[in-house]
Amino acid sequence: MTHVPDEGMVLVPGGTLITATPEEGRALAITLARHTVHNLQPDLEILRAGRARYGEDPMGLIAAAQVVALEFATVAAANGYWR
Amino acid sequence: MTHVPDEGMVLVPGGTLITATPEEGRALAITLARHTVHNLQPDLEILRAGRARYGEDPMGLIAAAQVVALEFATVAAANGYWR
Amino acid sequence: MTHVPDEGMVLVPGGTLITATPEEGRALAITLARHTVHNLQPDLEILRAGRARYGEDPMGLIAAAQVVALEFATVAAANGYWR
Amino acid sequence: MTHVPDEGMVLVPGGTLITATPEEGRALAITLARHTVHNLQPDLEILRAGRARYGEDPMGLIAAAQVVALEFATVAAANGYWR
Amino acid sequence: MTHVPDEGMVLVPGGTLITATPEEGRALAITLARHTVHNLQPDLEILRAGRARYGEDPMGLIAAAQVVALEFATVAAANGYWR
Amino acid sequence: MTHVPDEGMVLVPGGTLITATPEEGRALAITLARHTVHNLQPDLEILRAGRARYGEDPMGLIAAAQVVALEFATVAAANGYWR
Repeated sequence: MTHVPDEGMVLVPGGTLITATPEEGRALAITLARHTVHNLQPDLEILRAGRARYGEDPMGLIAAAQVVALEFATVAAANGYWR
Repeated sequence: MTHVPDEGMVLVPGGTLITATPEEGRALAITLARHTVHNLQPDLEILRAGRARYGEDPMGLIAAAQVVALEFATVAAANGYWR
Repeated sequence: MTHVPDEGMVLVPGGTLITATPEEGRALAITLARHTVHNLQPDLEILRAGRARYGEDPMGLIAAAQVVALEFATVAAANGYWR
Repeated sequence: MTHVPDEGMVLVPGGTLITATPEEGRALAITLARHTVHNLQPDLEILRAGRARYGEDPMGLIAAAQVVALEFATVAAANGYWR
Repeated sequence: MTHVPDEGMVLVPGGTLITATPEEGRALAITLARHTVHNLQPDLEILRAGRARYGEDPMGLIAAAQVVALEFATVAAANGYWR
Repeated sequence: MTHVPDEGMVLVPGGTLITATPEEGRALAITLARHTVHNLQPDLEILRAGRARYGEDPMGLIAAAQVVALEFATVAAANGYWR
């Protein structure tokens, strides 16, 4: 088994929810979702096979987008919506 | 592979969650959801094939509408609900 | 293709989340969800065929009710819960 | 077609989200979810057939419970959590 | 039909969302979800058969855990997060 | 049946939602989700079999990541987003 690299296992890269811009906050939301998955399944081969499958399945992409939306809600609130 | 154009990859187009009206906020919510999907799957042919499939599947449309609802909750809160 | 009429494409009919009553707020939540779907799939024939399918499928109705619940959470917060 | 009775079509029975107790708030959450479904599908025969199906399907019951949880979050916030 | 016992039908056992500890709040969240299901399907035999099915299905367990997460969000907010 | 060890049954390990860092808060969110599942299904053999199944299924991993996102929203709010 090829293990996800150590940096992919960090749950909150950077150790903070605070970002300079909404764009960075959105990128953090995607990273949070991805690193959760790495922790649930750290086998890189299985992850790659799964990514190929859900990436061609519209329901998989929509489900993943929903997780990103939920993570972003938290990141945005943490940043006072960058107002 | 035909890649999603650069502007379709920007996670938060305009770089802000603040909009002048609820209508624009709603449009932003749809764009946020779409650009997440672009980042998860940047191959335009696969995206087009998938859009044709979920667009004729009521469960796919409802799932997509749910993501928009979640994104809009964040955008609306960011804008103080345009009160 | 028969296109959804223009008024069905407006994302936030009335241009505001503020309503006089919870009943109107709830109706707005349903409309918001429906008009999202119109924007994702503006072909009226496909929409009608899909509505017939999900409308007889309990899982489809429950999924649609979930989107309405999410939209209503935002509308209700916008209105200070009509307290 | 037998139509859902008029009172089953009211989106917010009682016209308010405010209830005297958590128990009543929870009952309202269930009613809100049910009446959404009535508005999406007002044919009583189809509803009864669907209820029989999802009521014996654990995934259907869990999905319905999720909608109730979402509605209750809104009702509870409206009531200041009955503190 | 064997009916769920009366105490299993109470939507908010104890009549309050306030608990002494997070542990009790979490237990309440699970109970809220379970008692919703009892109200949607009060036939004990059907419930037991369904519990056996979803309890061996990882997607069923994850879906149930999602409902608990949603209920807990409300209970935790009601308790000011026990801070 | 091999039962989940006692410590795996505690719903809120540590008895608090407060953590020193976002990283610990995220780990708590994962633990909360896992221990809910332990309480719904305390048979370790069934859990292990299910984990193997959902862990190789991208939709299972995405669904699990969604539960973690929901739990984390609560933990993050409890901690004032560690600002």
